[in-house]
Amino acid sequence: MMGPGKAELLERIGHCGSIAAAGREMGMSYKRAWMLIETMNAMFSAPVVESTRGGPGGGGAVLTGTGSEVLRLYRALERSTAEAGAAEVKELAAHLRDMSE
Amino acid sequence: MMGPGKAELLERIGHCGSIAAAGREMGMSYKRAWMLIETMNAMFSAPVVESTRGGPGGGGAVLTGTGSEVLRLYRALERSTAEAGAAEVKELAAHLRDMSE
Repeated sequence: MMGPGKAELLERIGHCGSIAAAGREMGMSYKRAWMLIETMNAMFSAPVVESTRGGPGGGGAVLTGTGSEVLRLYRALERSTAEAGAAEVKELAAHLRDMSE
Repeated sequence: MMGPGKAELLERIGHCGSIAAAGREMGMSYKRAWMLIETMNAMFSAPVVESTRGGPGGGGAVLTGTGSEVLRLYRALERSTAEAGAAEVKELAAHLRDMSE
């Protein structure tokens, strides 16, 4: 449902207040950024991003409560799984070919 | 480096002793199954699958010690991360739209 790209997009929208700017920071077209937001808005029980209109700086976008919570949970999931899997990842990595050979 | 498809392929080769049969069980072409095995054989410090030749049943394939160990570690990784992330996954899922609506 969520992946690293969607999480990063939400995070950047939260920081820069604009879907276009957030997508640009990720080298993503506006169309692609919008598509990801629409996918998330349709997937969750409430929208994750809300467009704001007007005001001196023109329109922008903000994370909704659901958007912030989904992002928080996704980052928490990354942290707990990375921690829990660290030993196996290390053992698996020890079986990888030494590329400097 | 490893993913669910490669892990399943290794598991099935271990069970049925044949790359072609394992790939077939997964609806995968022989060419694709071979490519995945070659990728893993090149990625790890020792091959994960060894072809066997001759004998009454013709040639087959077996997991090497490295192959068995890599598969075991990958499954252990899946278990520990699933367990560690269960709470967040449940909370994230609670935010998903109820599709029966």
